[in-house]
Amino acid sequence: MNRHAVEISSFNPPLAEWLVQQKPSAMQNMLRMSMQPGVTSFSLGFPDISLFPMELYNKAIQKNFCPDHLQYRLPVEQLKTQILRILKLRGVLCDESQIFLTSGAQQGISLLLKLLLNSRDEITLEHFVYPGFMQAIASYFPKVCPVKSDGFSGVNLESLQTCLNNNTPKLFYTVSDGHNPLGVSLSSQEKQNLVSLTVEHEVPIVEDDPYGLIQYDGTSVALRSFDSQYTFYVGSFSKIFGPSFRVGWIVAPKQYIEKLSIIRESSDLNVGTFSQHVLAQILDELSIEEHVFTLSQAYREKRNIIVEAIQEFFPKNCKYRVPSSGFFLWVELPEDINTRELLEISIATAKIAFIPGDAFGLEGVSVPKNCLRLNFSFLPKKELYRGIKSLGKILQNWNTLGKRVA
Amino acid sequence: MNRHAVEISSFNPPLAEWLVQQKPSAMQNMLRMSMQPGVTSFSLGFPDISLFPMELYNKAIQKNFCPDHLQYRLPVEQLKTQILRILKLRGVLCDESQIFLTSGAQQGISLLLKLLLNSRDEITLEHFVYPGFMQAIASYFPKVCPVKSDGFSGVNLESLQTCLNNNTPKLFYTVSDGHNPLGVSLSSQEKQNLVSLTVEHEVPIVEDDPYGLIQYDGTSVALRSFDSQYTFYVGSFSKIFGPSFRVGWIVAPKQYIEKLSIIRESSDLNVGTFSQHVLAQILDELSIEEHVFTLSQAYREKRNIIVEAIQEFFPKNCKYRVPSSGFFLWVELPEDINTRELLEISIATAKIAFIPGDAFGLEGVSVPKNCLRLNFSFLPKKELYRGIKSLGKILQNWNTLGKRVA
Repeated sequence: MNRHAVEISSFNPPLAEWLVQQKPSAMQNMLRMSMQPGVTSFSLGFPDISLFPMELYNKAIQKNFCPDHLQYRLPVEQLKTQILRILKLRGVLCDESQIFLTSGAQQGISLLLKLLLNSRDEITLEHFVYPGFMQAIASYFPKVCPVKSDGFSGVNLESLQTCLNNNTPKLFYTVSDGHNPLGVSLSSQEKQNLVSLTVEHEVPIVEDDPYGLIQYDGTSVALRSFDSQYTFYVGSFSKIFGPSFRVGWIVAPKQYIEKLSIIRESSDLNVGTFSQHVLAQILDELSIEEHVFTLSQAYREKRNIIVEAIQEFFPKNCKYRVPSSGFFLWVELPEDINTRELLEISIATAKIAFIPGDAFGLEGVSVPKNCLRLNFSFLPKKELYRGIKSLGKILQNWNTLGKRVA
Repeated sequence: MNRHAVEISSFNPPLAEWLVQQKPSAMQNMLRMSMQPGVTSFSLGFPDISLFPMELYNKAIQKNFCPDHLQYRLPVEQLKTQILRILKLRGVLCDESQIFLTSGAQQGISLLLKLLLNSRDEITLEHFVYPGFMQAIASYFPKVCPVKSDGFSGVNLESLQTCLNNNTPKLFYTVSDGHNPLGVSLSSQEKQNLVSLTVEHEVPIVEDDPYGLIQYDGTSVALRSFDSQYTFYVGSFSKIFGPSFRVGWIVAPKQYIEKLSIIRESSDLNVGTFSQHVLAQILDELSIEEHVFTLSQAYREKRNIIVEAIQEFFPKNCKYRVPSSGFFLWVELPEDINTRELLEISIATAKIAFIPGDAFGLEGVSVPKNCLRLNFSFLPKKELYRGIKSLGKILQNWNTLGKRVA
């Protein structure tokens, strides 16, 4: 037996049970892969670094760098006030007492699960789910009631109704604008119907809204704008100001905020960080409306380029819905194209990476193998176009290449 | 019924079971109280902000502030290499593959619990425990096997042996230098005996070592220096460089590192932050040996001042052990003095805050009511002296004052 094999297989002391079968996520592997030189990556939900407000950051850092801001401190109240202004753009009206600051949206999700879930509770999820959520619930061993969803209509409300009629899930998780991975945004009417349904069944929604501020075809409101009792909203600065400062927030009914602070204290002490001061300062200097307008304009251009390139280079019988928010476009290719095989070929022959659709599929649910998620926010425009062109070429020669792999 | 009462008592949707009885910790309440103007606080384990390396921070921030460091990135490998140098000062020899970066020591603890613990597992704890640990295990509903400890000898190894002979706990948590709350540091021999005992019983130690680099009476090594298989080490930059940048680390056997990264990804995405770059840069510019020497010298002076003031102003029959590391001094007062009552009086009459010893007591264990934990790292030297003097006065008049409260 070689040494490496022994080390990997022998966990003494033993691991917690939930962890034994857990593998690093597709995301983490893709992060490693897409950082290799020469790779054109459509894989991850990265913002465009050229859109970060660098000058304002710089100014805010200088203004807030002092010994006192490096000390243990309570969360920065001023930041909560400024988040209210951001939330107004999503139709969400609340006050500071309903805001809880987090270290990014993933922590928001993780804290809400700890707030609401017991081990082995039942929850409701769509057929396609953001993998970070799947990782966050793994330790709860949840029973999952699956609800149909696809890249054209998003979550299927009839399927959700059937699920809620026959089960009593502890929560439903979704992204209602710029869905990850499906790219779909629900209409205002669909959102209202969705919320009516969950409220009627008294099922909390965990609304993950990292992309909602970035809109390409008009304005849009969050699910949280239709209900304040059962809808727990998760927001983030990662996509609008950059992820590395790790600040996000939860909007929850007031009586849950102290409990969230207990949970966060046990996770990472809930310290008011230097980051919180810097972001509060940036928001003080900037018109959030203008900033969000600029971002939407810039990402709309990229969306238009990827859509045009797909029209030009992808097979005519591939299907997609043009996203009106968010960073992803979901494509359904002809049925004979397995996108895991496509990925192998596109990496080997053209150094192009994306994530096959079934990587987002709910375990135990049979999902189509011919879909892929394409990120369009990160790559420079020329690379976006060239990358889709190269991928299109591979698709045009699919029969030949498909055989070579098989 | 008034509106406020309804809002606080009604959790609809319901909370997770573990959370129903959870209250904000004494620490969080003390943080609020001690930030009120005019309060002299001996309560919290705050570092002295005048000892933060501000110039190096400033330089490191300027050098590392760029769009690329605000993006999603993998943890900063260079920082792991520099942590190895820090660990050498604690007698810990390992390589980068055994280091996992965290967002502070509390996250380190929380991740290790998720790595090793199942719900309702048995664990071993001392009679006096850091409240942040108690918060972090609450959601596991652990069965706790208590081990005797006090402010003179720290953990009682005979009691630990009895516990391990009769139980099979999943872990033992401790602070071996500058114990929080007891202030005790174990001798090298005691550490070796402790580790031999836990290794013999194959019980993992979670070694929380925020203070170990700060030594007042010579050098000292970590428990981890005696064993690398069962000892999981938690380190932090909070006390040596300041807490607000939220960086710490775990040392664990190599095969656990990938699992830790899965857990952290589910908690907060495990992003290589701007903070990690800044700290790596500081460590690049600074001699850690010199920095730690400077800190030890400065905190030793404060330790000497609090010890002298206690000798001068506290009742002659109070007992304490002079701490050789860390930020706390544990005092046992005469038996008739209840330190919760003392706190009420000292706040009301002198605006002096500390934490009564029994606030750290393990639930279900009867601990003495006449102890208090005094922090000496935070206050300026003059305030430290004056504060102890005022507290001494209250103690001298205890009978009168005690009656006034009763």
